[in-house]
Amino acid sequence: MNRHALIDELKTLLEPGKVLTDAASLDTYGRDWTKQYAPAPSAIAFPKTTEQVQAIVRWANERKVALVPSGGRTGLSAAAVAANGEVVVSFDYMNKVLDFNATDRTVVCQPGVITKQLQNLAEENGLYYPVDFASSGSSQIGGNIGTNAGGIKVIRYGMTRNWVAGLKVVTGQGDVLELNKDLVKNATGYDLRQLFIGAEGTLGFIVEATMRLDRAPKNLTAMVLGTTDFDAIMPVLHAFQGKLDLTAFEFFSDKALAKVLGRGDVPAPFETACPFYALLEFEATTDDIADTALATFEHCVEQGWVLDGVMSQSEQQLRNLWKLREYISETISHWVPYKNDISVTISKVPAFLREIDAIVSERYPAFDVLWYGHIGDGNLHLNILKPEHMDKDAFFAECALVNTEVFETVRRYNGSISAEHGVGMVKRDYLQYSRSPVEIQYMKAMKAVFDPNGIMNPGKIFSI
Amino acid sequence: MNRHALIDELKTLLEPGKVLTDAASLDTYGRDWTKQYAPAPSAIAFPKTTEQVQAIVRWANERKVALVPSGGRTGLSAAAVAANGEVVVSFDYMNKVLDFNATDRTVVCQPGVITKQLQNLAEENGLYYPVDFASSGSSQIGGNIGTNAGGIKVIRYGMTRNWVAGLKVVTGQGDVLELNKDLVKNATGYDLRQLFIGAEGTLGFIVEATMRLDRAPKNLTAMVLGTTDFDAIMPVLHAFQGKLDLTAFEFFSDKALAKVLGRGDVPAPFETACPFYALLEFEATTDDIADTALATFEHCVEQGWVLDGVMSQSEQQLRNLWKLREYISETISHWVPYKNDISVTISKVPAFLREIDAIVSERYPAFDVLWYGHIGDGNLHLNILKPEHMDKDAFFAECALVNTEVFETVRRYNGSISAEHGVGMVKRDYLQYSRSPVEIQYMKAMKAVFDPNGIMNPGKIFSI
Repeated sequence: MNRHALIDELKTLLEPGKVLTDAASLDTYGRDWTKQYAPAPSAIAFPKTTEQVQAIVRWANERKVALVPSGGRTGLSAAAVAANGEVVVSFDYMNKVLDFNATDRTVVCQPGVITKQLQNLAEENGLYYPVDFASSGSSQIGGNIGTNAGGIKVIRYGMTRNWVAGLKVVTGQGDVLELNKDLVKNATGYDLRQLFIGAEGTLGFIVEATMRLDRAPKNLTAMVLGTTDFDAIMPVLHAFQGKLDLTAFEFFSDKALAKVLGRGDVPAPFETACPFYALLEFEATTDDIADTALATFEHCVEQGWVLDGVMSQSEQQLRNLWKLREYISETISHWVPYKNDISVTISKVPAFLREIDAIVSERYPAFDVLWYGHIGDGNLHLNILKPEHMDKDAFFAECALVNTEVFETVRRYNGSISAEHGVGMVKRDYLQYSRSPVEIQYMKAMKAVFDPNGIMNPGKIFSI
Repeated sequence: MNRHALIDELKTLLEPGKVLTDAASLDTYGRDWTKQYAPAPSAIAFPKTTEQVQAIVRWANERKVALVPSGGRTGLSAAAVAANGEVVVSFDYMNKVLDFNATDRTVVCQPGVITKQLQNLAEENGLYYPVDFASSGSSQIGGNIGTNAGGIKVIRYGMTRNWVAGLKVVTGQGDVLELNKDLVKNATGYDLRQLFIGAEGTLGFIVEATMRLDRAPKNLTAMVLGTTDFDAIMPVLHAFQGKLDLTAFEFFSDKALAKVLGRGDVPAPFETACPFYALLEFEATTDDIADTALATFEHCVEQGWVLDGVMSQSEQQLRNLWKLREYISETISHWVPYKNDISVTISKVPAFLREIDAIVSERYPAFDVLWYGHIGDGNLHLNILKPEHMDKDAFFAECALVNTEVFETVRRYNGSISAEHGVGMVKRDYLQYSRSPVEIQYMKAMKAVFDPNGIMNPGKIFSI
């Protein structure tokens, strides 16, 4: 059957107009936020129901057509890029909140619900959806689950995994599974829900997710502290963690801060120039807690770790301090950064960062290297900026050269080559730096069970 | 090869004296806390290293010998019972704490580490291991992970799953996998660690586990409240949860309380007799919080939900209030209770309990029916006590008759037939009440990947 006839057949499975093949749609829906791959899907399908998703998957099995799930397309590992004539299955029309239960503190979402929409719904009901990151305004719940999204509140609230009470999925075989039924406790064998979280659509598609909410945080208060060097950040984390329940502990380098301040729309936290900055947050529910925070700050100054600092006194100040961290990713996208998202256990962070920084500085003396990330959970974002004059492909080729060396170091530290961005196509060829050959064999065997014909997002996580 | 020759061969894999076949050992190590099955293992093997575990598994694959993992043998689903000539693999000699990291707040444990031992180690270091339950003095970490143990602090801290940073396992194929490497963030494909948590030893054996610790709770304070009826418990939960961060919310019926008070070593919480009691706990870090708790208590009295109550004013009082709940299981074991451990989402609890209670009361007008459990997470323990004069087998046979009806109700409420005790052999034949036939097929396919010869705890979770 030729491609044209196949697409005509696909159209019969969906509502009229819900299969697009125009060039603009193919270009838009065929890509995510990565820039290394040219989109080349055959068609974009927009199901509106679980039954339609199931029909698409069964048809794809029969016709051996590869499918790529598509959410908010904010991914950074090319897991949602269709570069090889695949049919993209977009969840843009499965974007309803189906139920909210105040007693259970749960929300039943279709996969296309925007993260921000869930956060807002929680807030309107006096509750809180704690998974938050720069792309929350466009990322979708289905995609969050597919990559087990992390973000800026992991130190307190954990990853997306912690907030998934139940999943309805269509497996690669076309079966509908209702996983865990939203229970807190359910000891009835293997928790298959967990396999689908972080599977990047390679086992099946999420068609419904019940997300948990938490109580709303009270009087969130942030501090930004300038440290003498990177090594000083860890004792600062330790000091604050011993005294307060932190909701965040982020860091960024002076170079990252300079880029954000260069925008002109965010005030500097304080005058003193420091090589590194920590941003921490806590609930200042009582004056005692605020006093403890200030006393701990003073202790860190006395110890010579911290040069200067500021604590938010209002919601506006809280927001402004957070912008220093949250605007980094968007701001530096102008320089087409080569991003690496790596992690180790927290205690290994200082030695690890020093080694990686040495490798990168030696190899790229001419490039701007920016560090920032979620230091409280061991997750570092390494960003190398493209010089204005340099060709994009040449730049990425040059950066890729050092990957092996960086990932070799990650392996030596028992770390992860992808902390929260996923594997997709970007990290696929490096998977063995984080997972052993035998583990990868078991992973492939899992894939073969759920997707025996290999139609679900092929070429993502593993090579085809 | 006959059994005798097989055991001789097994002995060559371990240190001298580390395979036992005497009647007393077979009887002890062949059973757990369930009483329905007669133990009948062939031998008990005591490995001391991962390599020895691996050697046992490879030998068992070659010789087609079934293996049963054995920890503290406190299980309530017969997952650790060897009733069919299996070789029991006991982790009693793999009971060392291998590492403690204060910065990462992690402890590397061999599987035979006793839960209480981990709790104590945490406390000695100013930290906290929050998974706690009646059998913590003898249950082992490996077993906790195998059943994803829950207990009395789940409402705040979640199940054992939340505290497993990394696992080293020997799969049913005899491969050693190091899963997740203790990272907080690791988005490199399927999280196989999650499959082994709650797998009851059917996929492989846990040979090392890195457990996370939390900060120590501060000034834990408990309240016991007597309610007018069961339905009043839910608005009480809701009222307190809206005001405080609860660390526990348990309940028990007047009959359960009467049994504990009958021991004579625990003081009654107060004079007023009530049909149901709630036990809640929180960190009274400030006077404000204690005041809020008392105001909420008064609100509950005014609403007519609560008849009487008490709040602990000292550690001794806190411990005494907890005994009212924690001693139930041990106290009623005298009456050889028929236990059912079921759960639904929290909002469905009142209607669900009413239906189950009606079924049981109608079928067993002559039996004592006791309710208690972790109401804050939807987990109810239904206990039917054996009349003194009745034969044990006749009693269990009678109780089993109503199982189908109970589990049919569980299914109708989208609940779980095993909230935290696991499936083992006890719930095996009822699995389809909580998992769909197609889901069970996928589970069996997972099992076939990790344990193709079916030597790992066969007959548990699924029939052979």
